[in-house]
Formats: sequence, structure tokens, C-alpha cells
Amino acid sequence: MINVGVIGVSGYTGFELIRLLLNHPEFKINYLAASSKGKIDEIFSSLRGVLDFEVSIADVREAAQKCELVFLALPHQEAMRYASELLELGVKVVDLSADYRLNKELYEKNYCPHLDDKNLAHAVYGLLPINRDKVKNAKLVANPGCYPTASLLAITPFLPYIDTNLGVMIDAKSGVSGAGKKPSATSHFVSVNENLNAYNPLIHRHADEIKMHLENFCQKSMSTVFVPHLVPLTRGMLVSVYAKLNKEIKPLEILREFYKNEEFIRIKTSPVSVKDVAGTHFCDIFAVVWEDKIFINSAIDNLLKGASSQALANANLMFGFDENLAMPKISQFC
Amino acid sequence: MINVGVIGVSGYTGFELIRLLLNHPEFKINYLAASSKGKIDEIFSSLRGVLDFEVSIADVREAAQKCELVFLALPHQEAMRYASELLELGVKVVDLSADYRLNKELYEKNYCPHLDDKNLAHAVYGLLPINRDKVKNAKLVANPGCYPTASLLAITPFLPYIDTNLGVMIDAKSGVSGAGKKPSATSHFVSVNENLNAYNPLIHRHADEIKMHLENFCQKSMSTVFVPHLVPLTRGMLVSVYAKLNKEIKPLEILREFYKNEEFIRIKTSPVSVKDVAGTHFCDIFAVVWEDKIFINSAIDNLLKGASSQALANANLMFGFDENLAMPKISQFC
Amino acid sequence: MINVGVIGVSGYTGFELIRLLLNHPEFKINYLAASSKGKIDEIFSSLRGVLDFEVSIADVREAAQKCELVFLALPHQEAMRYASELLELGVKVVDLSADYRLNKELYEKNYCPHLDDKNLAHAVYGLLPINRDKVKNAKLVANPGCYPTASLLAITPFLPYIDTNLGVMIDAKSGVSGAGKKPSATSHFVSVNENLNAYNPLIHRHADEIKMHLENFCQKSMSTVFVPHLVPLTRGMLVSVYAKLNKEIKPLEILREFYKNEEFIRIKTSPVSVKDVAGTHFCDIFAVVWEDKIFINSAIDNLLKGASSQALANANLMFGFDENLAMPKISQFC
Amino acid sequence: MINVGVIGVSGYTGFELIRLLLNHPEFKINYLAASSKGKIDEIFSSLRGVLDFEVSIADVREAAQKCELVFLALPHQEAMRYASELLELGVKVVDLSADYRLNKELYEKNYCPHLDDKNLAHAVYGLLPINRDKVKNAKLVANPGCYPTASLLAITPFLPYIDTNLGVMIDAKSGVSGAGKKPSATSHFVSVNENLNAYNPLIHRHADEIKMHLENFCQKSMSTVFVPHLVPLTRGMLVSVYAKLNKEIKPLEILREFYKNEEFIRIKTSPVSVKDVAGTHFCDIFAVVWEDKIFINSAIDNLLKGASSQALANANLMFGFDENLAMPKISQFC
Repeated sequence: MINVGVIGVSGYTGFELIRLLLNHPEFKINYLAASSKGKIDEIFSSLRGVLDFEVSIADVREAAQKCELVFLALPHQEAMRYASELLELGVKVVDLSADYRLNKELYEKNYCPHLDDKNLAHAVYGLLPINRDKVKNAKLVANPGCYPTASLLAITPFLPYIDTNLGVMIDAKSGVSGAGKKPSATSHFVSVNENLNAYNPLIHRHADEIKMHLENFCQKSMSTVFVPHLVPLTRGMLVSVYAKLNKEIKPLEILREFYKNEEFIRIKTSPVSVKDVAGTHFCDIFAVVWEDKIFINSAIDNLLKGASSQALANANLMFGFDENLAMPKISQFC
Repeated sequence: MINVGVIGVSGYTGFELIRLLLNHPEFKINYLAASSKGKIDEIFSSLRGVLDFEVSIADVREAAQKCELVFLALPHQEAMRYASELLELGVKVVDLSADYRLNKELYEKNYCPHLDDKNLAHAVYGLLPINRDKVKNAKLVANPGCYPTASLLAITPFLPYIDTNLGVMIDAKSGVSGAGKKPSATSHFVSVNENLNAYNPLIHRHADEIKMHLENFCQKSMSTVFVPHLVPLTRGMLVSVYAKLNKEIKPLEILREFYKNEEFIRIKTSPVSVKDVAGTHFCDIFAVVWEDKIFINSAIDNLLKGASSQALANANLMFGFDENLAMPKISQFC
Repeated sequence: MINVGVIGVSGYTGFELIRLLLNHPEFKINYLAASSKGKIDEIFSSLRGVLDFEVSIADVREAAQKCELVFLALPHQEAMRYASELLELGVKVVDLSADYRLNKELYEKNYCPHLDDKNLAHAVYGLLPINRDKVKNAKLVANPGCYPTASLLAITPFLPYIDTNLGVMIDAKSGVSGAGKKPSATSHFVSVNENLNAYNPLIHRHADEIKMHLENFCQKSMSTVFVPHLVPLTRGMLVSVYAKLNKEIKPLEILREFYKNEEFIRIKTSPVSVKDVAGTHFCDIFAVVWEDKIFINSAIDNLLKGASSQALANANLMFGFDENLAMPKISQFC
Repeated sequence: MINVGVIGVSGYTGFELIRLLLNHPEFKINYLAASSKGKIDEIFSSLRGVLDFEVSIADVREAAQKCELVFLALPHQEAMRYASELLELGVKVVDLSADYRLNKELYEKNYCPHLDDKNLAHAVYGLLPINRDKVKNAKLVANPGCYPTASLLAITPFLPYIDTNLGVMIDAKSGVSGAGKKPSATSHFVSVNENLNAYNPLIHRHADEIKMHLENFCQKSMSTVFVPHLVPLTRGMLVSVYAKLNKEIKPLEILREFYKNEEFIRIKTSPVSVKDVAGTHFCDIFAVVWEDKIFINSAIDNLLKGASSQALANANLMFGFDENLAMPKISQFC
């Protein structure tokens, strides 16, 4: 058994990591930390009788003594501080924040000054299965954002066929858990229920994350329009991509070929549904062509494939395990 | 008082028409018909103590005797039969079905054979405020579909500036009431709740309705991609439009100029929300430009502006009343 | 037109009061106040284009100059300070807080020290229609709580037949708007959605409000068990009452007799539904007997009959208008 | 590995059984049947890539050849026909229908004529943990209803202390999945969302199931009032019980003693929440005393503890496995 830890355990992705790790045959939870001490089942009442574990105040040295790998489920900026110290002490890190997902310039444009150039240079963007090989030898994996995961998995197979001048228009829809656990006017039940709206159109931080990695993958400039929407559901994410094609293609054949042998990517012959993937590590993808336009449609669980289960799959690879070891397959939603 | 009737009173739009007419100072409900007899408050229990009225089995002659105008809230194909007979008997008609919204060719491609060429030729597409002047003298108004209403109101002001080659990509999201009252696997609470999906991508019948009227308005061919989505809320519709511009524009100024003096079209400076328009006759619109792309965003209540209140506004015009007489202004949703 | 004002306009009940007053033929909004200045449509974006009105920082003197009646939509304790000063200046007050609903002893047990004995002594508990006659001459009306309104209207007709020793067991369920607009962990969408729970069982402040008034009405001691539940819906309240009968009765006949001539109380022959009353001033009631037990079931809109529309009905009476003038009758929910 | 089958696989409980069995180390799915043939992932799209299995048209002989135990997830009346034939052929049966839960008289009062007296006589009511010992040797287990499971687990520990004359008043609330998968007017999203209502008050079929078993457990007559409510959530059930006590008790101590050593019954010190148990086999219970009244509060997942996971726990016992083998412990809901 490999001892692992989670720092920043009190949010939604922290909870999901714990749930996943409890079912993992090779990783053992040996350290949990948050901004205040306490029992884990006091933070999450649903864990009573399930996990009896003391949550510490985050301490890098203690984490390094107890763990071979640490998941960072922290806000950006805070994550990079822990990551650099943990790496120094020889601990592998999967960082669920944005701190190592972008190059320095784009990071600082979207977030704040970057203080860890050294590790930024060698961090691997853990988008699976696309970057699988790079992850295997990584010490530090930057776990992709939820919107980028769903968008990049949908678009990447079609990069050779998309008119880059026009580029991609991404209309993304997310459940409310994507906005985090902190109460706010916009997450109040009465605000969200029976409501629906776009937010941060064209300027959401994930826009540059998507654009940068698309351009990395295709080695060309790619115009990228990205508009996220908030939808009244707890979990799940749907991405609808519109683009112009530069040649005639059979979209389902392209998807099947690109993702052949991928256990957790399903190519569908009709539009995908959030309910089919909620609670699982699956990404479902569908695409259809109309004259010279393509509509690409993907669905993931924003907290799992879009965060915690992808983080765990990255950890699996970093220790030589099967990428899909202990990945959740069946939604509990009927 | 003008006597009016509603044929097809048992669905959602029938209910909304009744609710609106009860608050109208000039129209009086004098005839209600459905496929079976009964009291209106047996069909809609919330009308108990509000409206005591006998629902008849639809009979054109009786309707014509009792009403100067009839709203048809019927399925397509059924509506045209009633419309032609009512018009013959001198009754004005506002048809909420699709039967007179398209030209014969597009209608028959999307629906079924058209049996009323005569009236199809002079029916007015009741998109308000754009077709206001034509409606004033109409005997037969084809009330627009919900998706076309939200899409056309958003796109039309920008027609001179949109690259018609690339055209418009419309990502539309609707609450479940848009799918009608008939129980089905896809409207079951357990299917809809915590779910989200596209449906009929690119081939929804409203795609041709939008394209045909856009092309009418701009007198050019306009590539139109349309993908509707089902969202877990009862009422409300959000439309997100993506297009490429052929020149630099100030989108909010264009909207303000195009819709100046329109009481029920609000130009917003940030993304629109379903909750702001639900229960009202408002259409809220927002737009923002990013390099050479535009994102246009509109919200309506699918059952009111997208159906029954627009129908009533059309009826207002057909009798010389103020278009906005008795239009609902304030959402009851907190 | 009578000039009226609302102090504490930024919460849900403040919004509902504005909406109702806008449709009122005899009351005119002449003063709105909150804890910060601004335009009303900046606080409630759905009021853009509907009401253009400056919100002041609450000032008793200004309110008294501008209004003959003021609605207080303030937290308890704050309300009594404004009420006493307004009354002093000759302004009538409808207080939506708890400050004048209980006698001093019960108030101080449940809330805080009471600082306005003088007005507490003559305040009228504005439960309509039961206290209608007392309200007509009141200067100060204590508008009942939402749970007490639904509970008292359900139970009062049966007081002569209920075994007072066993008393009443009230299982109440409320939508989330009842908890107010302030964001908190318990009102977060992710907490509420797909959840359901009791809270403050047996010790909720409304328990004493119900018990005290039941005992006032029947002039006997009445054991009262009250357990509220939070349900994942925005608005609406359902109350289920269980009691033992001391004689055989026909419950629907009793209800019909007790509430004959009441336009806004509907006696149903099957269980009541929140959807039938949401958005309206109605209270629907049903009851059925099983051996020696009775089940009484009532539904109201917690923000209207349970707060703002009852407040307005009280104001109607205080100025000699018909109690039901401008009361909302039709839900906008399909 | 023990080969097992499920007949009636197309409903919600059938799906849950499959999901649970896929994670079970000792049971192997060897037979699935429904009313029409097909692939299981055509019935449940979320099973694509998870389970590749042919669903047969139910055939007792084939089931008996392939399975040592069969779960019947069928409507009442149909279930007893299959059960009797399977038992005849030596197959163990866990019946999720109501067919063997009641004595003949109560069954025929609530359902239809009973055609299998023989097996009714020896069927064991599989309420766990209470009937654990009887289940171990059973050939036929009648799996309890969802409402009875939550109600009986809450009430049973207090039977010695409850005034039987007054008895128990059970206010139960269920998510919509409890009403089954068949589309109907009452399960339509628009009907359920933002709604809340009681149904079948006092005459629901589960009332007699609860009363009969309570009386079996305490060997006394017990007045039982039962009112179920429909709540707008997919899964989960909350039961609130009101009763009068015949002596002073410490309710939490009684619960802790009664359920000591029970891994899947959690005694809470504050009201229970559906979200804590949804997706799991847990039953959470809380109780509090007020003068001479008790409020008991329990929560379960209606499809798991109230149906499929309890069925599997019964099957575990029938084959000598640990009752809790492969029981789901952690909700996937955040």
C-alpha cells in the first residue's frame, strides 16, 4: 500500500478524493489536512461510521513524513506554496488547483504572480488519456480544470479538420458544485433554482487554459470562444462545441479511432446526458456534421472526471498502476 | 369588451392564456374548448375559486357565434383545420401552433402536408415588436415558436454585421414546460432532475423557422446552426448565439437603438437570467464582442413571451389596443 | 391614493410587498428604505423597467412625512424600534417581524428583551380572516409568521373537537425562501437540492406563536408539538396536523361552515398541493378522519399568505378597503 | 461465486440491484429478465461500457437452471407466480414486491386475491437487522416496503414506551423514484418541481404493512396513522413519527442500546438528513422527547435500504455471508 494524503479536505473535491481513496486497493489515506483541526466526519456528516480520521492543520513536513504522494485540493496561489515544498522533500504531487496548468504569462494574466517557476517548467498537464505518457514519469501533475477537461476531450480529435481561423465556439454548462462550497448570493438555492444564466462570457479563466492546450496539441493558433453557464443541478457538466470544418469527415469514426481502447471514454450515437456520467469517471462524447459545421457534445462529472477521479487516475499512473484502477463506473443516480 | 375564446385549453399555453385574459380589461373569455367537456377548474385545480367556466368540445360554429377572436392552442395540423373554418366565418385567429409560421415547402419538410394554402399566403408571422405593423391589419397571426422568438429577437439587430457565410450558431436551453404536458419518459421527474442534454441537434423544427425568418429580415442567405438543450427547470428559456462579425461594432449601442421605445425588451450590460423574465412578457438581451466574434444572449419565459403573452399582444394589436395592454411585468419568483 | 412605505426592502418579503403594491389601485409606494441607498432595480434586477424608485436609508421622520402606513420587513428587535417611533408620529404600521406577535413572556423566552410594552399591549395579531374585526381599528398589526398562519388556519375550526390533553402534532414543510435571502451553508444549492430534513424540532420559535394563539382562540391549554422541515423548493408551505378527536365529526362540513364566504380559503376534498397556492393569497385546507384521529392539511405561499399578501390584506382593512383588494389569485407556475 | 438472477430488471430497483451485484465479491449476475428482450445497456444507457449482458424474457426454468437465487423486482401479483415456481425448483427467492409481506387477510384487503398460501405461510419478512435470525434459514424473503423499513426501524426500539391507545402518527416523505419509472401526470417534472403534497392519507397500502409488523413486534394492538408525502427530489425518504410516551425515557440511549453493533444504523444527535444516506445502505435515526411526547426521525435511501440493498443484505444472510458484504457506504452526492 502506498500512503497518500489530501491537503484541503473540506471542499467538494476533497470529499470526492476521500470517497475514491476509500475504495482504492493500493492507496491508503494517511494524512488529511484543512484549515482547522477536527474529525473528518464532523466536516462531512455522511462519513460518520465510514471513516474515522483526524484532520490536521496543513504541515508540509508532517505530510512528507506520512505520504509518498499528496493531492492538493486548495485554492490557487496557496497550492503552489505547498507543492514546491512537498516536491523539495521528495513527495509526488497532484495539484487540483490552476497553479501549474498554464504558462507563466497566461497564469499571471488570469490569476496572480507565479512564485514557482522551477516546478512550473516541468509540471505535466494531467489530461487523460491524451497526456498519459508524460504523466507516467511526472513528479508534479497539474490536474486540468473541469471545463478544459470536457472541452479538450471533445475538440482534440477534430483539430486537424477544424477551420482555425474561425476556431471553436464552446458553450459550456455546469452544475452548481463547480462553484465551490462557500455560500454566496449566487449559490443560494433560491437564486439557482428555476434559474439559468451565462457568466464571465469570453473572459472566464478556463478560456485561456483551453486555448493554450488546444494550441499545444495542434501547434497552430486557434481562435477560442468560451462561455460557461450555470445550470440548476448539483453535479455534472455538458459542453457543446460549434466549429467550421475544412474538409468532409465522418465524426463518429474519427472519435472511435482516436479513443479506441479507452475504457472511460464512450462514443455515443446521439446527444450525451449528464445523468449517464454523473458519479463516474466516464467522459461521453457525440458529434454530428451539418453542411460545413460540426457540433461536438461531451459530458462529464465535474467533480470526478473534471477533478478528483482524474487526479486519482494521474496518481495511479505516477505509481505504475493501471490508470483506471478504482475508477467509479456506475452512477448512483437512477 | 371583446369576446374571445381559446380552443385547446388543457395544455400549458392554454392555461397561461386564461390567466392573462382574466387580467385583461378589454378581452372577455367567452368560449373555452378542449377534447373533453368539463369545468375549467377540474382541469386546472389552481383555478378553483378563480374561474367558474364550462369547457366545451371544440365546435367552430359555436366558437364563431361567441367570439370575435379565437386563440388556437392546438397541435400543428389540427390547428389549420380550425383556423380556416374560423376565418371563413369572419373570426380573427391567433394560432399558437406551427401551422402558419413557415412557407409551404419548409412546413411540409418539417411537419406534414399543408392543407390551407389560401390562408398560409396571407398569415402574418407575429414576432413582436419586429412585425408589429403587419400584425395590425392581420386576420390570421402565426404566433412564433418559443425558440424562434428568443433567437430572432437576439440576432435581428445584428444582421447587417454578421458574416453570413459562417452564419449564426444558436445554443438554446429550455425548461421542461416547453415539451408539453403529456407524460413521457423524457419528462419524468427522475429523468429530468439532475440531468442536462441536447436534443434533436441541427434538425429541430425550429431551426428552419429561425433560418427562414432571419433570411426574410436580411434578404440574404444565412447559415443557421441550432441546437436545443433540455434543462431541469419548469419555465424559462435562454439563448446563446455565436457569430463572426464583418466589422467592428458596439453591440449594446446597436441593441439600444434597435429596441429604443420597446417597453418589454430590456438591454442588459451583463449576461441575462431566466429568473428575471420568468412569469413576464419581457425579453432581456445582452451582447459582447471578442475580437471578431460576437456572443448574443437572450432570455424569455417560454410560455409567455415564447407563446401566450406574445399571442395576447398580437391580439391587442389586431383590435387596435396598445400592444402591451395587460402584459405581465413582474415575475412571481423571488 | 394612500401613500405607503416599506422599510427593509431588500429581502424576499420586501420584494413581494413591492410587487403587490404595484398592482394595488389604492395604495401608492411613496417610500422604500433599506440598510443601504440605491435604485430598487439594482437590488432586484427583475424590477428593471418596472419600477424606477430610489431606496433610502431608513429614516423614521422621512417615512412619517411621506406615508400614512409603513410595512416593516425587518429582523425582529429592529422592527420594534421603528414601530414605536412611527406610531408616535401617527403612522399606521404592519410589522412582518415577530416583535408584536407574542406576549412579553413568550417573546423574551424565544427572542430577546422587549422594549416596547406600550404598543405590545394593543397590537393586533393580524391572522386573517380570524381576527378580521380587530384589525379594522388597529394602528399596529403584528403580521403572523408563515408556519403559524398555515397551522392556525388549519387547526382553529377543529378546536372544539380536539382532545386538548393529547393536543396537536404539527409536521410542517417549507420551501427555502422561508429561511431568508442571506447566504449560508444551509441555503447553498448543493446542500438543499436532493436533500430533506427536519430542523429545530419542538423548539422552533413559531411553536410558541402557534400554541399561544390556539390557546387564545379556544381559551384552554393545548399541548402543541411542532416540527418544521426544509424541502427543496423555492416557495410554498405545507402543514400536516395530527390530532385525536373527542367526538365524531364530519371534517369537511366543519371547514365549509367555518370558512363560508371566505374567498381566499378553499376547502378541498383531497390533499392540498403547494403548487395550487404558490404565487397567490389562497390557503387551501383539507381534512379527513380515521377512527378517532384527524389529519388536517393546509397549503399556503409562505411569502404571500404567510407574509406579504397577508400584510397587505391587513393594510386594506386598516384603511376600510375590502380585505381582498388586489390579492393575487392565480399562480404563475404551470 | 454464487450465480444469481434478477427478474424485472427494467425499473429503478432492478437497476440498483445490478449496480450492487456488480460490486459484490460472491454473487455473480447470471440471469436478467424483463418483459422484452434486449441488451441491458439499451435499457440503461449509463451501463454502456459497464455491463454487457443479454436481458431475456422471464422464464422460470431458465432462471432456475442458471441461478441459486433470484431477486424478483416485479409488480405485486406477478411476483407470487414466479416465486412459487422458483421455490418449487429449489431456487431461493428475495421478493421486492408486496406479495409476501402481509398476512392473507391484510394482503387481500390492500392488493388482490392471494394465490400462494403455501409460501406465504413460511415467507420471512426481511426487515434487517430486526429479523436477521429468521432470514438466515429462509428460502423466501419478503423484502419490506420503503416506508415500512424507515418507519419500523424508527419506531420498534420505542415500542415498550409508546402509549398504544394513542399509537403512532407517521408523517413520511419520499422522493419521486419511489413512485416508479412509468410516466404519469403525477411524475411529470412540471407537476413535481416546486410542488409538495400528501397522497393517499391514512389509506396507503404501506399503513397496514407498518401496523401489522409493529403489532407483531410488540404483541399488542397499535393505533397507526400513516400519511405519505411526495417531495421534489429523486431519491431519499424521511420519516417523522409522533407519539405519546407512557414513561420518562432517554431516547438516544434507547436507540444506542437497541442498535449497538449495527454498522449501518447510525444514531444521530440532531435531525437526520436525506443527503447523508442517499446512495447508501445506512438508516440514520434521531429522537427527542418533549414533555410526554416523542419525535422520532429516520432517513433512508428509498431505493437501497428501502429496496435493493436490503434485498441484497437478505441474500447475503441466506447464503451465510456477512449481512453487510458489499453494502454501499458512501453517498456519491456532495
